[in-house]
Amino acid sequence: MAQSKGRVTIPTDMDVVKETLEIMDEWGADAIRDCDGTEFPQELKDTGAKIYATYYTTRKDNEWAKANPDEIQQMYIMTPFYTATESTLEIHLMNHLYPDMLKVNNRDDITRWWEVIDRTTGEVVAPTDWGYDEATGNVTINKCTPFHEYTVSFLAYIMWDPVHMYNAVVNEWKDVEPQITFDVRQPKTRAHSLDRLRRFLDTHDYVDVVRFTTFFHQFTLVFDEFAREKFVDWFGYSASVSPYILEQFEKEVGYKFRPEFIIDQGYMNNTYRIPSKEFKDFQKFQMREVAKLAKEMVDIVHEYGKEAMMFMGDHWIGMEPFMDDFASIGLDAVVGSVGNGATLRLFSDIKNVKYTEGRFLPYFFPDVFCEGGDPIYEAKVNWVTARRAILRSPIQRIGYGGYLKLALKFPEFVEYIKGVCDEFRTLYDNIQGVTPYCVKKVAVLNCWGKMRSWSNHMVHHGLYYRQNYSYFGVIEALSGAPFDVSFISFDDIKNDSNFLDKFDVIINVGDADTAQSGGEYWADEQIITAVKKFVFNGGGFIGVGEPAAHHWQGKFFQLNDILGVEEENGFTLNTRRYNTEEHRDHFILADTEGGNVDFGEGKKNIVALDGTTVLVQNATELPFAVRHAEEVQMAVREFGKGRGVYISGLPYSFENSRVLYRAVLWSASAEDELHRWYSTNYNVEVHAYVKNGKYCVVNNTYEPQDTTVYVGDGTSFELHLEANEIKWYQTADKVPEPRQ
Amino acid sequence: MAQSKGRVTIPTDMDVVKETLEIMDEWGADAIRDCDGTEFPQELKDTGAKIYATYYTTRKDNEWAKANPDEIQQMYIMTPFYTATESTLEIHLMNHLYPDMLKVNNRDDITRWWEVIDRTTGEVVAPTDWGYDEATGNVTINKCTPFHEYTVSFLAYIMWDPVHMYNAVVNEWKDVEPQITFDVRQPKTRAHSLDRLRRFLDTHDYVDVVRFTTFFHQFTLVFDEFAREKFVDWFGYSASVSPYILEQFEKEVGYKFRPEFIIDQGYMNNTYRIPSKEFKDFQKFQMREVAKLAKEMVDIVHEYGKEAMMFMGDHWIGMEPFMDDFASIGLDAVVGSVGNGATLRLFSDIKNVKYTEGRFLPYFFPDVFCEGGDPIYEAKVNWVTARRAILRSPIQRIGYGGYLKLALKFPEFVEYIKGVCDEFRTLYDNIQGVTPYCVKKVAVLNCWGKMRSWSNHMVHHGLYYRQNYSYFGVIEALSGAPFDVSFISFDDIKNDSNFLDKFDVIINVGDADTAQSGGEYWADEQIITAVKKFVFNGGGFIGVGEPAAHHWQGKFFQLNDILGVEEENGFTLNTRRYNTEEHRDHFILADTEGGNVDFGEGKKNIVALDGTTVLVQNATELPFAVRHAEEVQMAVREFGKGRGVYISGLPYSFENSRVLYRAVLWSASAEDELHRWYSTNYNVEVHAYVKNGKYCVVNNTYEPQDTTVYVGDGTSFELHLEANEIKWYQTADKVPEPRQ
Repeated sequence: MAQSKGRVTIPTDMDVVKETLEIMDEWGADAIRDCDGTEFPQELKDTGAKIYATYYTTRKDNEWAKANPDEIQQMYIMTPFYTATESTLEIHLMNHLYPDMLKVNNRDDITRWWEVIDRTTGEVVAPTDWGYDEATGNVTINKCTPFHEYTVSFLAYIMWDPVHMYNAVVNEWKDVEPQITFDVRQPKTRAHSLDRLRRFLDTHDYVDVVRFTTFFHQFTLVFDEFAREKFVDWFGYSASVSPYILEQFEKEVGYKFRPEFIIDQGYMNNTYRIPSKEFKDFQKFQMREVAKLAKEMVDIVHEYGKEAMMFMGDHWIGMEPFMDDFASIGLDAVVGSVGNGATLRLFSDIKNVKYTEGRFLPYFFPDVFCEGGDPIYEAKVNWVTARRAILRSPIQRIGYGGYLKLALKFPEFVEYIKGVCDEFRTLYDNIQGVTPYCVKKVAVLNCWGKMRSWSNHMVHHGLYYRQNYSYFGVIEALSGAPFDVSFISFDDIKNDSNFLDKFDVIINVGDADTAQSGGEYWADEQIITAVKKFVFNGGGFIGVGEPAAHHWQGKFFQLNDILGVEEENGFTLNTRRYNTEEHRDHFILADTEGGNVDFGEGKKNIVALDGTTVLVQNATELPFAVRHAEEVQMAVREFGKGRGVYISGLPYSFENSRVLYRAVLWSASAEDELHRWYSTNYNVEVHAYVKNGKYCVVNNTYEPQDTTVYVGDGTSFELHLEANEIKWYQTADKVPEPRQ
Repeated sequence: MAQSKGRVTIPTDMDVVKETLEIMDEWGADAIRDCDGTEFPQELKDTGAKIYATYYTTRKDNEWAKANPDEIQQMYIMTPFYTATESTLEIHLMNHLYPDMLKVNNRDDITRWWEVIDRTTGEVVAPTDWGYDEATGNVTINKCTPFHEYTVSFLAYIMWDPVHMYNAVVNEWKDVEPQITFDVRQPKTRAHSLDRLRRFLDTHDYVDVVRFTTFFHQFTLVFDEFAREKFVDWFGYSASVSPYILEQFEKEVGYKFRPEFIIDQGYMNNTYRIPSKEFKDFQKFQMREVAKLAKEMVDIVHEYGKEAMMFMGDHWIGMEPFMDDFASIGLDAVVGSVGNGATLRLFSDIKNVKYTEGRFLPYFFPDVFCEGGDPIYEAKVNWVTARRAILRSPIQRIGYGGYLKLALKFPEFVEYIKGVCDEFRTLYDNIQGVTPYCVKKVAVLNCWGKMRSWSNHMVHHGLYYRQNYSYFGVIEALSGAPFDVSFISFDDIKNDSNFLDKFDVIINVGDADTAQSGGEYWADEQIITAVKKFVFNGGGFIGVGEPAAHHWQGKFFQLNDILGVEEENGFTLNTRRYNTEEHRDHFILADTEGGNVDFGEGKKNIVALDGTTVLVQNATELPFAVRHAEEVQMAVREFGKGRGVYISGLPYSFENSRVLYRAVLWSASAEDELHRWYSTNYNVEVHAYVKNGKYCVVNNTYEPQDTTVYVGDGTSFELHLEANEIKWYQTADKVPEPRQ
């Protein structure tokens, strides 16, 4: 049935050539990752396996960087806030920054590219009122207003590539020479880099796949004076700048550049900030220019008859893979690190490449492959978590990284991975080329839309924060759910008044006035009327956290008439609330234990409006009688022919995944579609590939599970599954179309 | 020592004349409240006690009201939000309002005094695009934009006085004729009312004190279609309006009046809203005009040789007693209902009256004076809670209300109250005319300042809400604390750059962007620099909840450099936080059990900046590793010579009162002043009246307490107190002056 070979990439090393051959055979691997910085053994070349070579576009060439210091990559930095207590204030720019990593750039005109701002008033301090002294490294501001706060925004050269530094610090490398990041987009370095790539290809004939790690601009990553991570933004553009580029940007947009466009009051346009027009302009410019130059490199690779693969991470800024510019590059493949379902779909959903490959955990590194380590457990969690997403949007290959010899010391691990490889190949064969059965078309609405599909609640790849795990849970649940999921932006709605027609349910998740919930966009007449019309005509709207929240015209939740709830911030305490009865006996809660749901961080001060059905509210006992004591956690309401659902937060779990599934169905008035390709036990999921006549039932847990499985025609059967088991079935069933 | 008679007012009734005489003797009462609407018995007139008569200025004269329907008191009402789904929308104005209470006023020009607003855009709908049909009671809006929301702001006559209706509903009075509220400020009713007062005085010769209940305008109180409280604002001005008054207002301010000035998007300018210029103008106008007319009435009372007393409540709008206009009225006395310490100081702090009187709980009503009722417990709680405040700011009289005959059935209650009366007289004699020793000068800073002294976290008199009890607790603690407490406004600071010099500590308490915390005032250069300068030079700043919070120039907590904390709303997740170690061993927490503090609702997402000392943080276990997991609840920081303290919330308790006391001392760098007039046991407090050479030690609990008492020179002694006990001492000690 399934191929016993292929679709698997493994690492190798000079000292494990024989073992590499054995593992290739055992796991059915057909590709080998080059050993960094060494010759490649002939025995492995002879296997016929594809050889991947990691290629660092922006570093590992200090000779060039040192010879061309003006073309070292720069980044914008804002100092902390400093309070003036007299009329003069001195600010040492490198305070709280790691000295070896950054070097202040005063080579370019600092009066043009730096900005000193009075943060008390928001006004720019005239360059005639401040100066920089290279000897002390201080900016001195004259004519300060006492007790005003000041910041300096300045450019610095990246003297130690942040990823290289991170690896050096974490692995405690000694005496390593910091690799300087050079800016491939600048004229001399651009020519040099294209030439350097050709030289690499000339000398690496045996390489089949050039794995770019990555292209030109590192996501924002800064270390403090103790070499600790100080600031990290996996989406940050602040290390993609230089006067050379910014002058081109100015010319293109026709308005004067300000450092503040990047600095953004120190928020650096992170993913939670509602993007300004200027920042969106800059991103658009960068994506186009980055794509243009990346295409030149990819074309060269193709010229040599090799494949071009991109690692999704590190210097990936400007390469947002769901945007049109990316499609123009002509990459053959993307490889991404697998953290969970959402990070898997970050690259598995990419169109316009021949294949995508997931790099699974654990790395074969000594932290896990040691006495007491449990690499099998880590591998299981990683595989089972990602498998949900793969079943919705398959990758074409899987792979591992690290030191193969470490893995070999754990024969049970080797055995487990063999099973994973077989399971993946079977899965791939069964579902390849087929869109899985989707119950509903769901759109996640925020300021970023498709640009940050699946990553819209990430700060750093795959890391959780207290402030977002209850929201990210929704995205993770969706990554493996049988929905056709789109990420749409407010601009999409503004640009096309019929844009929402194609969806069944809209989801808006996040805190008030963030880019995720939308902030002032909800005071935009076009947006609010389009969404209300959508729901009134039968659409569903699910709001999580502080959805559609922005103070405007007597409301905070602008869709309180759809969601049925408001946030009580003190402004409506005068209004008595009588709708405080819970109704846990509801379709959405039917698979929970007594309606108990883990809302994660939840939300405080949510009150129900009259006419709303409260499903769950907090019953905290207070020390004395208070008004407005109840805090709604979940509520539903009808609006015209449509329905709204409010949820205060929904961290990822199998149970919460089911709650979300039912909420989508209920909000779309599709309760009667529940029993199609469905498992009554929420630890088990069913995925149907109708055109292939296949479906699978998959146990997401590490224990055996029993369930009733409903197939497409509504008939059912009982099933027992072993821990993690996936079972494949043929079906001749004609799958009923979802109701419109 | 103490008088055995006087300073106590009791109620009476025609059927308990003999018993009234006995109780007067037993409690030492020297004043009697008139029986509502009856003749007054000669035996009581003969006692020589003062006789109080309740006088209703705005109601109990339906004959006049019905004959002058154009001068019935009006109020502004906003309908709920209605969504248009086509081009026409009909709104029934009386939806969700109690039909007998209000009558739509379309006698006046509705195109001028009503407003239809498109709440989606915030624009006013032209009066030519809507009309009102008296027959249906509907406003019909034409040319609606589908899916926009609309509201109607309209005037309605108050056909049933809200307090009268409340009493009727709560006491289930049957067949009572609703008392109509007439507007004493309008020309015919004004003349009639002055005349009516004279007639009352002419026919009530035996009355010594006219107790106005109250003057002209009821605080906002509206009932829904089920006669339930729908909207209540003890400070609301929306029932103080009429075209007659508003035309005068227009003339005075020189700009056109808009209903929206009162409606305020439906928030009705409640106490949490940052007041607009127009609303402040209107309040100023009303306070002056109300005071002017009240003075005319008071003058008439004086003309008859009687005293004029105001009940603080009901129709008290415009009579804010800490404002200059109030002082001009010439009232002899104010009587207020005692809920807790803060409500006591609402009237005990009033200057410019001869005396203030507290009406204590419980009322002699059948809900408490019944089988199973515990009137002594209620009386104890009320007395002991208020006593703290009385010891700081004495009232001159106490009193009770209700049906005396009910109280007589509880001889132990009668006995307890006898003790209270004696205790009050002793207390009064000991402290009268002396400012108690104040450790520090503390200013509570908000948008309202002295206008809403002690009431700045109240929605309705003495009621708690989930959203404010953790803030109100600070005010309640202050009401009995040995500080010189001022309530100051941002305008005070703007008007006088040296205004803050006279204080030791500033407190800012509340949620972001409310009038209590200040919102956009913190982006005002004058405010922020004045406060920073104050702290830098040695002042203390205590922020509770979301102090000084307003999004502006990269900060949310505008004083995060003084408070040491920020609120993480997602915008700075990119910044790593390493300052996550607790330091519970701190002066402020020294009297708590292991640093455990009840923060009430507390706050989420508070993070510590570098350089801050975190005292307490939440240690909630999360289901998986997350960044920014710690949530600060209390932190301190130095700023120049001054100090900042952050507290997430502080509901009232004796322990929290102590926490606040220590926070004030610490923030003022006055830790070494702790052991002056101080009890080591926080359930016991010490108050010193230095000029009188007296001090007392008071047990605030219902159990005996032991403590060490420190007097003014720092020497101490051990003391045992019985439950609730107060002990008075003479002292020749010279009290040390607080350090500057």
